Amino acid sequence: MASEKDKKNQLSDLGEFGLIRHLTSDIKLKNSSSVRGVGDDAAVIDYKGKMIVATTDLLTEGIHFNLVYTPLKHLGYKAAVVNFSDVLAMNALPRQILISMAVSAKFTTSMIDELYEGIYSACDRYGVDPAGGDTSSSLTGLTLSITALGEADMDEIVYRSGAQPNDLICVSGNLGAAYMGLQLLEREKRIFETTSQQPVLDGYQYILQRQLKPEPRGDIIQMLRELKIKPSSMIDVSDGLSSDLLHICNESRTGCMIYETKIPVDPETRKMAGEMNINPVTAALNGGEDYELLFTVPLSMYEKISQHHEISVIGHMVNEHDGKKMITLRQGEVELVAQGWRGF
Amino acid sequence: MASEKDKKNQLSDLGEFGLIRHLTSDIKLKNSSSVRGVGDDAAVIDYKGKMIVATTDLLTEGIHFNLVYTPLKHLGYKAAVVNFSDVLAMNALPRQILISMAVSAKFTTSMIDELYEGIYSACDRYGVDPAGGDTSSSLTGLTLSITALGEADMDEIVYRSGAQPNDLICVSGNLGAAYMGLQLLEREKRIFETTSQQPVLDGYQYILQRQLKPEPRGDIIQMLRELKIKPSSMIDVSDGLSSDLLHICNESRTGCMIYETKIPVDPETRKMAGEMNINPVTAALNGGEDYELLFTVPLSMYEKISQHHEISVIGHMVNEHDGKKMITLRQGEVELVAQGWRGF
Repeated sequence: MASEKDKKNQLSDLGEFGLIRHLTSDIKLKNSSSVRGVGDDAAVIDYKGKMIVATTDLLTEGIHFNLVYTPLKHLGYKAAVVNFSDVLAMNALPRQILISMAVSAKFTTSMIDELYEGIYSACDRYGVDPAGGDTSSSLTGLTLSITALGEADMDEIVYRSGAQPNDLICVSGNLGAAYMGLQLLEREKRIFETTSQQPVLDGYQYILQRQLKPEPRGDIIQMLRELKIKPSSMIDVSDGLSSDLLHICNESRTGCMIYETKIPVDPETRKMAGEMNINPVTAALNGGEDYELLFTVPLSMYEKISQHHEISVIGHMVNEHDGKKMITLRQGEVELVAQGWRGF
Repeated sequence: MASEKDKKNQLSDLGEFGLIRHLTSDIKLKNSSSVRGVGDDAAVIDYKGKMIVATTDLLTEGIHFNLVYTPLKHLGYKAAVVNFSDVLAMNALPRQILISMAVSAKFTTSMIDELYEGIYSACDRYGVDPAGGDTSSSLTGLTLSITALGEADMDEIVYRSGAQPNDLICVSGNLGAAYMGLQLLEREKRIFETTSQQPVLDGYQYILQRQLKPEPRGDIIQMLRELKIKPSSMIDVSDGLSSDLLHICNESRTGCMIYETKIPVDPETRKMAGEMNINPVTAALNGGEDYELLFTVPLSMYEKISQHHEISVIGHMVNEHDGKKMITLRQGEVELVAQGWRGF
């Protein structure tokens, strides 16, 4: 019955303002800085001398996500947290987001509800207020654009550009898991399309979760504050360790030296990589979407930082003219290269 | 030669980071509050006790714009200024924007350059810093998402919700011009498609400009400050006078009474409406995209405000239970109804 009703429950029945009301009527602003959210021309935010951090991400169907294997709720969640991750990577705390969406006629109200449920659930978990946005129609598919605003004290902000030679290169959690999760989803999709066999995803919960429902590392920011460690530079790992470390090098005008054996990889990532004949370190270097924090700290912090089990020290910064290198087991010293759009 | 070169100059040749560099290398931050723009995970903005205003807009090809008759430069300009208009409608001044774009393979680098030229030209004109964004590919067409941030002192912010019964309803400039400009473009497109006859747009420069290259009313905000008039409520006319005035009524819990004969319409709008058998007041009420400011002021401001030739007093607010009405020449009193997505 419900699904029959849902089919008739077209977006066009609501109209633009009806849809906005429908999507936003339950929002309760949590931060005292959120003076005004949805319901006016713009969101109003009073930070009283704090630094404002603003970031935005645009996701389009078929490029950034595939609705065949991405539940809309997970998509919404991920779209929100990747922006929180960008804010955290400035050593700031996410406070508000603006959500824009364009949808084609194939989407029903309940599908959009699912999407926003995911976004709001991420907001709830990380204490962020949905403070505005825009909804409209599109000729094809779904486009989602999220802007996040965050705050920090002036001396807390950490840029990509502050690393110095000899600083330690640190990374939280482990890398390559989200990429191997994606490879698994794509393999099972191909099998399903050719044989109609149901996907076999057992035993790979962790890498699937890393791909479908990543969690930004607010806990690491918290931990660094408790340890009174302020990174000299920081970035979140969205394009892959290689690209993101090169961003830090380029912005800081330094080189780097990392060690293949120090790169943290989860056993499940390693197992799936083995099944697929992929080098797990390649997944870590080039896979992306890990949303771990990559940061540098002065050498003097070594004892403090190396004791934390969620942090791996993977190398150190060097002078710019010494290059951007990785020491590997089989090939010795190799040069790090960026990936980005071009893929593998 | 140049266009031959442009064809080969595909976006894919640049790669993601190359494109970002290409698009942003000439940006110079103008405001001292723009601590950090493009080049890190997020833009950093220090307003030191000022109110932050944030707004966002998502435009998709085929829905919000038609590249058959919208030059990309104008599209970029308009996409930026509609956000400035939202900031101004809060009685705040636009300071930064974040620009996100998804493009399909049919776009060349020089097309994207044109688009950004328009965006940057709007930023230059209105003193706004492009402070960040996101670029990616899409399977079909162009999607543009712009977020604008603005600032105001705490007591300067004007909401939609502050109107009181007896307040005067004021509107800047004139209404319906952008809509009649769009009708003209669509008529000429139909003629061109069926007869290959070149468009005849002579004598309609003004309404075309209002459609293709609207200007937000920063001058009106300036004028109100000089006259020491703080509106009790304000909105920009993006959906049409009717919808936007109803927003003020609903948020302020008031009714309204406006007079058909007081609604400002440009002679060129009137002429084109006549040619097309459209009531120009209908274009003003329901057309939208005028980006004029609609605001209310206390009755005591009548002398001050009514002397300004760019402002028309079109009616007054009434108690909520007295309804939302317009006095017309032919039908007497009629009820105002919202439009929005549903069109005409």
